[in-house]
Amino acid sequence: MFFASDNSGPAHPKVMDAMMRANEGFRFGYGADPEMDRVRAMVRDLFEAPEAAVYLVSTGTAANSIALATLTEPWQTVFCTKLSHINEDECNAPEFYSGAKLTLVADENAKMTPTTLRATMSAEETRGVHGPQRGPVSITQVTEKGTVYTVAELKALTAVAKEFGVATHLDGARFANAIVTLDCTPAEMTWKAGIDCVCFGGTKNGLMGVEAVVFFDPKHAWEFELRRKRGAHLASKHRYLSAQMEAYLDGNLWHELASMANASGQRLADGLRKSNVVTFPFEPEANMMFFEAPRGLHKKVQAAGAQYYVMGSLDGDEDEPVLGRLVCDWSVGFNGVDAFLAALKD
Amino acid sequence: MFFASDNSGPAHPKVMDAMMRANEGFRFGYGADPEMDRVRAMVRDLFEAPEAAVYLVSTGTAANSIALATLTEPWQTVFCTKLSHINEDECNAPEFYSGAKLTLVADENAKMTPTTLRATMSAEETRGVHGPQRGPVSITQVTEKGTVYTVAELKALTAVAKEFGVATHLDGARFANAIVTLDCTPAEMTWKAGIDCVCFGGTKNGLMGVEAVVFFDPKHAWEFELRRKRGAHLASKHRYLSAQMEAYLDGNLWHELASMANASGQRLADGLRKSNVVTFPFEPEANMMFFEAPRGLHKKVQAAGAQYYVMGSLDGDEDEPVLGRLVCDWSVGFNGVDAFLAALKD
Amino acid sequence: MFFASDNSGPAHPKVMDAMMRANEGFRFGYGADPEMDRVRAMVRDLFEAPEAAVYLVSTGTAANSIALATLTEPWQTVFCTKLSHINEDECNAPEFYSGAKLTLVADENAKMTPTTLRATMSAEETRGVHGPQRGPVSITQVTEKGTVYTVAELKALTAVAKEFGVATHLDGARFANAIVTLDCTPAEMTWKAGIDCVCFGGTKNGLMGVEAVVFFDPKHAWEFELRRKRGAHLASKHRYLSAQMEAYLDGNLWHELASMANASGQRLADGLRKSNVVTFPFEPEANMMFFEAPRGLHKKVQAAGAQYYVMGSLDGDEDEPVLGRLVCDWSVGFNGVDAFLAALKD
Amino acid sequence: MFFASDNSGPAHPKVMDAMMRANEGFRFGYGADPEMDRVRAMVRDLFEAPEAAVYLVSTGTAANSIALATLTEPWQTVFCTKLSHINEDECNAPEFYSGAKLTLVADENAKMTPTTLRATMSAEETRGVHGPQRGPVSITQVTEKGTVYTVAELKALTAVAKEFGVATHLDGARFANAIVTLDCTPAEMTWKAGIDCVCFGGTKNGLMGVEAVVFFDPKHAWEFELRRKRGAHLASKHRYLSAQMEAYLDGNLWHELASMANASGQRLADGLRKSNVVTFPFEPEANMMFFEAPRGLHKKVQAAGAQYYVMGSLDGDEDEPVLGRLVCDWSVGFNGVDAFLAALKD
Repeated sequence: MFFASDNSGPAHPKVMDAMMRANEGFRFGYGADPEMDRVRAMVRDLFEAPEAAVYLVSTGTAANSIALATLTEPWQTVFCTKLSHINEDECNAPEFYSGAKLTLVADENAKMTPTTLRATMSAEETRGVHGPQRGPVSITQVTEKGTVYTVAELKALTAVAKEFGVATHLDGARFANAIVTLDCTPAEMTWKAGIDCVCFGGTKNGLMGVEAVVFFDPKHAWEFELRRKRGAHLASKHRYLSAQMEAYLDGNLWHELASMANASGQRLADGLRKSNVVTFPFEPEANMMFFEAPRGLHKKVQAAGAQYYVMGSLDGDEDEPVLGRLVCDWSVGFNGVDAFLAALKD
Repeated sequence: MFFASDNSGPAHPKVMDAMMRANEGFRFGYGADPEMDRVRAMVRDLFEAPEAAVYLVSTGTAANSIALATLTEPWQTVFCTKLSHINEDECNAPEFYSGAKLTLVADENAKMTPTTLRATMSAEETRGVHGPQRGPVSITQVTEKGTVYTVAELKALTAVAKEFGVATHLDGARFANAIVTLDCTPAEMTWKAGIDCVCFGGTKNGLMGVEAVVFFDPKHAWEFELRRKRGAHLASKHRYLSAQMEAYLDGNLWHELASMANASGQRLADGLRKSNVVTFPFEPEANMMFFEAPRGLHKKVQAAGAQYYVMGSLDGDEDEPVLGRLVCDWSVGFNGVDAFLAALKD
Repeated sequence: MFFASDNSGPAHPKVMDAMMRANEGFRFGYGADPEMDRVRAMVRDLFEAPEAAVYLVSTGTAANSIALATLTEPWQTVFCTKLSHINEDECNAPEFYSGAKLTLVADENAKMTPTTLRATMSAEETRGVHGPQRGPVSITQVTEKGTVYTVAELKALTAVAKEFGVATHLDGARFANAIVTLDCTPAEMTWKAGIDCVCFGGTKNGLMGVEAVVFFDPKHAWEFELRRKRGAHLASKHRYLSAQMEAYLDGNLWHELASMANASGQRLADGLRKSNVVTFPFEPEANMMFFEAPRGLHKKVQAAGAQYYVMGSLDGDEDEPVLGRLVCDWSVGFNGVDAFLAALKD
Repeated sequence: MFFASDNSGPAHPKVMDAMMRANEGFRFGYGADPEMDRVRAMVRDLFEAPEAAVYLVSTGTAANSIALATLTEPWQTVFCTKLSHINEDECNAPEFYSGAKLTLVADENAKMTPTTLRATMSAEETRGVHGPQRGPVSITQVTEKGTVYTVAELKALTAVAKEFGVATHLDGARFANAIVTLDCTPAEMTWKAGIDCVCFGGTKNGLMGVEAVVFFDPKHAWEFELRRKRGAHLASKHRYLSAQMEAYLDGNLWHELASMANASGQRLADGLRKSNVVTFPFEPEANMMFFEAPRGLHKKVQAAGAQYYVMGSLDGDEDEPVLGRLVCDWSVGFNGVDAFLAALKD
């Protein structure tokens, strides 16, 4: 009953197998491994983007920060929601890497809308040289509240970005979960919807720690490489990143694992809904959900062994509603979900 | 016959076993794994430093850059040799993380000396607020040319640093190899010799990609944590870093692997010396050596399958001396060395 | 009829006289001029702060950015309103100098309130190492909309900052105008109200281009000096900055000029109010005001020679309300004001 | 007898007159003053560069740092001599603005040579992504030791830069003095010699504090403007910078003042040479010189009222040679020089 995060569970056995295979013999370092050649080809195939620049880094914050720095000048501002990981959870890494700042766009159901985005980008009149200049739009998919942009919504947002002549970045730490929800292709959710750069996450979906950064226009390739190295994110024994990603792509393991996580998430959401004791401030659309429940209920479930984050103290009025967050990874399984729901009922 | 780098070979099987064990079940992320608790205790024991702050990152450049940034103000300069990794091989990462600059100290046998260090630090009169202010001294052990500072030499250098009231940093990407050469303890080669912060390398010595940063004064702990996160180097699934390091420390595997690498290195150096066809611009004291040999010889050995870096082109006068670099990792073994020496003779 | 900005008018003749006097003979550079010794003493007297650290720079953005960088760590966030100059008008300079980010606090009448500040600082839970850490609070006095914090309001805000253990910075580009409005002493509006650092503006109040940065705790002195130099803001011929500031302080010229500017501002506001054709979205409390008037009116007044900024186009429906901004400097005078009001009536 | 620096003397009366004239009436700020329009045209005329981008800042460090940042990527290195102002006297400002590092080129007579430059740029093999990439070459004219590059020497250096495909920057804090020495035109000493960007100094040659930055290719214009603003170096009351520079250009005052300074410098050098008691480590070619003389002599001259910098203590053996630096500005005059020489003889 571990629902604290989708970075809490184990890597998938196929990933471990790939690591073992990759551990044989010698390789040239720093991305010159044959595993990376295969990964590059596979990512290009997956995204139907034969010229895309493809790189690996070991953390999601690195993927976002270095990708954004490549798309942003230090006198610009990046448009994102207040809830976005780059704003709330990366301890100024995006600002550190880019030298730029972030401008917050109002969200509805944790998603920016064409209206709020256009309003913010318009209001951000640059006053000539005085204000920060408009930089890229960064969209988080799945959002940090568990909701998912439709492809049409993404297209509408990238259209606004194009009105202002700026690039779009997709923080896809939970990219796979969104694909499963939307039942669309990676190309449809990215470049066909106007996205210029995507961070294709693996860490939260069964890898040990690998994210792919994909630029659909390869002109960004060399700058990204230099920024990655300067950020100390170029792995010398790069094969161990490549091997994880290769296993992830092979046979669409990424899709299979996200399907498992989402199925658990939906089963959990359904169970909670039927319980009639919780409310969802945001509609759970993938593998993560926030739910409000009486403090006493949280205490009971946690006493039964459920592990997850509660926003606030467990000390206090038992009836007062308190917010909790549940995240299902690929490994938690229906057993885990059902155990949680049983503890809820008892 | 792969001598290109000690980041080219496989990780040790015990490391892979530890990864498999660590892959079971759930863990809280970001360093809150029980593996890390054990690693912290083991590193403190190893260094006889019960209060040391201990952190893990996945690249040597990250270890150096974040450690130095923690010790340096952005208006200071770091003293190091021209040959140091932080100067030549990190694409401005130390400057990026610290905001500071590097001032180069002349080297002899690839090592700075108390005389050259004091001369440079004195010459770097700061002219009040005009010049960069004096910052930490960074020493590379094993040097980038394969030589090793004695403990007495380290003590003499840290004494100079103390004259100027600045901290000392040890880039120990090949820390273990130096320990084997000097046959001393980690404490003797670090804090007992006046070192304030050490990057204790694992990646070049049989791990997949982990370096420990150790501050002997724990006052630096919180700043390092924030700088690591802001640099996007805090691993969410941290257990996979911890597990590698735990295997490395367990039963002193780190020492065993470095002993193997150094033994190969010394066997290789002896063989080259006896061949009478090569010269060493620097005395090979650990597992890495530079050697000058006629171009024709390089071509012959490489044709026989030896892989290593040659500084310059293999096209040209067969008799002209050309510099090559050979690095032995733990796995290359006496067979590999002997095959190389045989190819040389044929 | 020039109301575009209080940086549009001439410097006061006494300032020019002081420049002429300062131009005689030789001086050591970089702040070692005797004029600066006198300035330091006069600023300390003015603020009743005998130990304050006092420095001069030539732009308000430099004063704010270097002062904030001295008070902020690169992993922190600065709390300010959306309207603040540091957020909207400094093209990322505060972020550049500090490495930090800004978090926006909701404003009422262009001022943050203890309630909005506390709410934002509380919500900005740092999640351990993940979110930006709380940094200083920056307050703009006079606000960018022409309103003025009372001393009680300042005290209430600095009390919130102290709850969270962070410093407070006062952007006093229009410090003198606020003093005139509040009829209080510089000490009462700064350290006695809990302010740690103030940028005491001169450029908008009759100087050519000088701002004093005052830290009430001198522990910040040396760091500020180094950051100023590193930012390229240490003037070699510093006497020309000192001379301006000395003239400004001598006989309280600063207060006299701000009194003139505010008197013009209040006369202008009164006239506009009586005209019954404009509305004030913010109460004009010093020398600057925003007013909404029909587009036709703006066109008429501007055709009559009035120069000021209009927020939007002058093309369009004549009756539609459009926002304008009027700023009175010391030199515009009652004649200028009356000419404007006459143009309005005609 | 004030020879401490050419930033120690007064501004020329014509400059003060121009300031007084500029102080009348209202101007739009931030470079939109008509004075700047005239300055731009005059600089373009002077440099025979009708499309050049021309900007003003108030310090030489700002001019160098922002100009270099515009020409440099943060993963590059700037080539300069150890003695250059950007390396020794700007407290990391060039690194702060550019994010890059500096690589030092050996000097002869305080000047880099095509041989030393090519050697350093070649040695700085970038190792793919590992080392810093090659960035611009920065040349100081007059050098920090008072020597002057000939036009042929500049051409030879820029030819090397072009071999490597990088831009060239001229730190012309004493540009005018070099022009006088070489008796050539500004165009001949800059773009006709292959220079891409020049900092045309005024502060050390009779202005209060203004430097012009000139890019011969206007493509850099907008980036420079944004970097200047982000660096807090855009003056709001910009007319006071423009007015100084206009006076400087008007009637070639800049040339007249440098001619006076150089004439004093040469008279002083001749007198010292004839005295037979001093030696010049560098040939004095403009208005600045370093000289070695017995400590007793320094003491005697300083006791007579001469003010200048001595490199080391005046306490000690009277006969020991000690280095001193003398700089003549436009105002020191032959009387000042002769008084110094008389004090030397007595």
